[in-house]
Amino acid sequence: MDTGSIAWAITATALVLFMTPGLAFFYGGLVKAKSVVSMMMMSFGALALVGVLWVLYGYNMSAVGGTWEFAGNPFSDFALSSLATGETANTDLIGVAFGATFAIITVALISGAIADRAKFGSWLVFAGVWATLVYFPVAAWVWGGGWILNLGDTLGLPAVIDYAGGTAVHINAGAAALALAIVLGKRVGFQKGMDKPHNVPLTLLGASVLWFGWFGFNAGAEFLNELANTGLIVLNTLGATAAAIIGWLIVEKLKDGKPTAVGAASGAVAGLVAITPSCANLEPGWALLLGIIAGAISALAVELKFKLGFDDSLDVVGIHLVAGFIGTLYLGFFAIDTGLFTGGDLGQLSVQAIAAFAVAIYSFVIAFVLGFAIEKTIGFRVKNEDEIAGIDTVVHGEEGYKLETV
Amino acid sequence: MDTGSIAWAITATALVLFMTPGLAFFYGGLVKAKSVVSMMMMSFGALALVGVLWVLYGYNMSAVGGTWEFAGNPFSDFALSSLATGETANTDLIGVAFGATFAIITVALISGAIADRAKFGSWLVFAGVWATLVYFPVAAWVWGGGWILNLGDTLGLPAVIDYAGGTAVHINAGAAALALAIVLGKRVGFQKGMDKPHNVPLTLLGASVLWFGWFGFNAGAEFLNELANTGLIVLNTLGATAAAIIGWLIVEKLKDGKPTAVGAASGAVAGLVAITPSCANLEPGWALLLGIIAGAISALAVELKFKLGFDDSLDVVGIHLVAGFIGTLYLGFFAIDTGLFTGGDLGQLSVQAIAAFAVAIYSFVIAFVLGFAIEKTIGFRVKNEDEIAGIDTVVHGEEGYKLETV
Amino acid sequence: MDTGSIAWAITATALVLFMTPGLAFFYGGLVKAKSVVSMMMMSFGALALVGVLWVLYGYNMSAVGGTWEFAGNPFSDFALSSLATGETANTDLIGVAFGATFAIITVALISGAIADRAKFGSWLVFAGVWATLVYFPVAAWVWGGGWILNLGDTLGLPAVIDYAGGTAVHINAGAAALALAIVLGKRVGFQKGMDKPHNVPLTLLGASVLWFGWFGFNAGAEFLNELANTGLIVLNTLGATAAAIIGWLIVEKLKDGKPTAVGAASGAVAGLVAITPSCANLEPGWALLLGIIAGAISALAVELKFKLGFDDSLDVVGIHLVAGFIGTLYLGFFAIDTGLFTGGDLGQLSVQAIAAFAVAIYSFVIAFVLGFAIEKTIGFRVKNEDEIAGIDTVVHGEEGYKLETV
Repeated sequence: MDTGSIAWAITATALVLFMTPGLAFFYGGLVKAKSVVSMMMMSFGALALVGVLWVLYGYNMSAVGGTWEFAGNPFSDFALSSLATGETANTDLIGVAFGATFAIITVALISGAIADRAKFGSWLVFAGVWATLVYFPVAAWVWGGGWILNLGDTLGLPAVIDYAGGTAVHINAGAAALALAIVLGKRVGFQKGMDKPHNVPLTLLGASVLWFGWFGFNAGAEFLNELANTGLIVLNTLGATAAAIIGWLIVEKLKDGKPTAVGAASGAVAGLVAITPSCANLEPGWALLLGIIAGAISALAVELKFKLGFDDSLDVVGIHLVAGFIGTLYLGFFAIDTGLFTGGDLGQLSVQAIAAFAVAIYSFVIAFVLGFAIEKTIGFRVKNEDEIAGIDTVVHGEEGYKLETV
Repeated sequence: MDTGSIAWAITATALVLFMTPGLAFFYGGLVKAKSVVSMMMMSFGALALVGVLWVLYGYNMSAVGGTWEFAGNPFSDFALSSLATGETANTDLIGVAFGATFAIITVALISGAIADRAKFGSWLVFAGVWATLVYFPVAAWVWGGGWILNLGDTLGLPAVIDYAGGTAVHINAGAAALALAIVLGKRVGFQKGMDKPHNVPLTLLGASVLWFGWFGFNAGAEFLNELANTGLIVLNTLGATAAAIIGWLIVEKLKDGKPTAVGAASGAVAGLVAITPSCANLEPGWALLLGIIAGAISALAVELKFKLGFDDSLDVVGIHLVAGFIGTLYLGFFAIDTGLFTGGDLGQLSVQAIAAFAVAIYSFVIAFVLGFAIEKTIGFRVKNEDEIAGIDTVVHGEEGYKLETV
Repeated sequence: MDTGSIAWAITATALVLFMTPGLAFFYGGLVKAKSVVSMMMMSFGALALVGVLWVLYGYNMSAVGGTWEFAGNPFSDFALSSLATGETANTDLIGVAFGATFAIITVALISGAIADRAKFGSWLVFAGVWATLVYFPVAAWVWGGGWILNLGDTLGLPAVIDYAGGTAVHINAGAAALALAIVLGKRVGFQKGMDKPHNVPLTLLGASVLWFGWFGFNAGAEFLNELANTGLIVLNTLGATAAAIIGWLIVEKLKDGKPTAVGAASGAVAGLVAITPSCANLEPGWALLLGIIAGAISALAVELKFKLGFDDSLDVVGIHLVAGFIGTLYLGFFAIDTGLFTGGDLGQLSVQAIAAFAVAIYSFVIAFVLGFAIEKTIGFRVKNEDEIAGIDTVVHGEEGYKLETV
């Protein structure tokens, strides 16, 4: 591999790793001050655990030898000793490191659905098992030679486009988040307007770190392609996100009269999610339109939980699942050359929809069963009185702030 | 373009994009807790709006076909569809994305002058129109083939040096900031000592993100030059900034007896501004001297607003306009080969001064007229009682913090 | 140098520079709200001062002409005018800038030992002199042609491995921190449990920025090697750190019943320290084991200060000195090809131990004498009543927060 591609690959790895702390700040600022430690620790716990599991066996699982294999053999090169001593070790290990950052953040994303009420140990159990049963195989399906990668060939249709992981990451995490929100149930006093972010600058910081790192997320894999398409990807990652902020703020303005900072942050994330699968396959103007749409629809979708009665506390469903679907399906209409309105037919939309729904259903089912099993055995949710008192002191023995100066 | 240059160009794009949130934190920490949301949202609003406008037509305006053209045709390739499908699309779109980040932060910088009292919608109108009438054309003048780029040739003098935008970015934004400070008028109770930063760590975080991103800002354009001069640029971006912190803290120590963290952060920004035009054209020792001077003079210049009676709330004039001029004119004396004391004559100083004053005057006038027009039509400033009550709840319906843990 | 290597080198420089603000936030969040400005300013002061000294003469000192020279001549190319105009200026100046960031953070690390009680001016004197007498020469010993670099040859043993600075940076800073903790003495009321972090999100932010920047720290020097080993380095910088978080949290859980966010942050730093010397010379599995060990032992080692009675306030000894030794000596057992259990004999362990102890002793002695001299002349420690009242207002005339919204 040429040094320019390596330089970008390792930069991108650092950027994407940084996103998970960014997510911790984004989520952390949104909860109450008494649960900020718990909220952030779910991301940092996922970072630690999934990082280790990926090196031990997750990477091995993320590529298959045949289209219909479920996953790679986790023990084929345990702890990657062979890979690290092979002839192409440098390139291979860069791929391992880059892939680790995706596994980590996908798991961490889920935690937003269960704010304020999840036991840390139980969350780690969920994180490790869900990564193993869902993320590692799905990564193999989408990028590692599996059935989704080959779905177009199988059906005689265009190939599924999921460049940086709208399906593998966002729909996947969003569906699991929905399952866990249902399994753990609503927080005490759940109702519209109960949530006031305790620290808006922290949430904006988180969204900013996410956006910053997302350039690595979306354009990182171009190291396999001599960076040939990075211009389009980077520009779309900027434009769609900017447009999504506007989309969200317009809906807020029309609906509630005032555009909020949390809305701007959420809009940015919705835009980033939507452009994730599509960043390499949309002209800049269509990317702007996607951003506006994703921002506006997600701003409406986050109300659904109150109507449908599930407490997806920090809107993982409304943002990641919804905007993940929007970005994935939008390619069916506007993907360069193959979209319905851009030179193609309904083929692209068909394969996009099959991949998206398959992963959503698989992830939801496994997450639901797994979450249910944890709740019924070691318990997943803290006691109501602990939730009211504040989960930080109960679970972590720590308060987020001691701000008095005397 | 070689992959190494691409790798750096897209890294730099991410870095410079991250600077605008950094600016939001730098500014946000300096205001009162009751206006932190408003302060940050002016940066994020500029980020969203200018990002979209740049893709739609701003990039088209930023290059001209002849020296005396005002700007490029905004509709020549609306939304960049042709560029995105051209043979050099990758390189071109990287340039578009990199340029977007400059347009965005230049606009966002201005908002520091109107803290605590600007309506969000009116600010967005200003941001969009000022970007269109001032930033996009000035970028064309300085970098896109326009009259400033060719001023040396026109006059038979050395070429203007404005490597990363002392004139195009900082003088430009600083002059507009002065205009808006005058148009909007002083905050209620304006006097020396009224400002206490509500969150020093947030301001230091902002300054740190700015410095971090500024390596991309100053060295990014070297992707057009096979990175040939990046060593000098990066070193100067480090050295001058370090020196400027010292310069500012010494002045504070002598003047007030105590060096402050806000002084360190402000000194860093002053140093970064001063080294922006000059980063590629000063030996490291002269860059250190420039840093000391810029830090010290800016530390004195921020007092001017109290003497002259304009409420440039967060010192955009004292830092960006003043240090922008310092860095731009300093090249007249110390630019490698062409400075008065480094092998040249007064020619370099002359062209530097012409460019700097021309942009300052143009930007000031348009910003003044535009700000005045907004104030007289839809209104730019909130009511005094809303300013006193706290603009965040009035304009955004949101408070920055809810820190109680019970 | 090829553009890919340049791209990575300047990216890494920006990343490592960003680490020192990261350290300021990590440290800043751990102290009380009334000393957060002082704590952060020690890092920013070191950043400014050491940055300037490095350009003026520090870089010149960091390479020697013969194995047994103490340091390079500081005045050989004062302010680097010759280097900046030489034929290989670009490469050379990149090396200068990258090296500056190491000098800066090594000095800043020390400040964690003297939280809440050090005069800012005295700290700057210490920082400048310690950098000159200790860091600049030790850098020459380890990387600049000096006796540690050549120790293997001298003794007929394997070469010392200190890839990114376990000895030159962490043991060096940790030993100086121990000396200063002793010289300045215990804070008023020093006892176990006195410390409650005032801002956990700030500490997690700091740790996250450190981790993010550490990819540049560990893999940066590969720009001299056409990035040939970056895959292993980056993966180990991820894996060992993830494992160290787990190691620390397990010890906390077993010892105190609850895993904390400060523990996760501290574990991450311990893992990063341990993998610093060893990142390029361990297979991924052994790097995970090192992480677990470093995290667990550091979690125990931070208790030592209460038993031994020195107030290393923020655990620079327990984390940087201890994990620095662990990482350095671990190579004696597990370094690829040369470790005792991986193909070698006791030779690697011997040279590792000699280098580590030599630097620790040298740094400790100079720091002790220097700190003592400062305390006895201009005074190093503030008055007890100022420490109790809060050092921020006394030394910097500034409070960290003004969070009331009315």
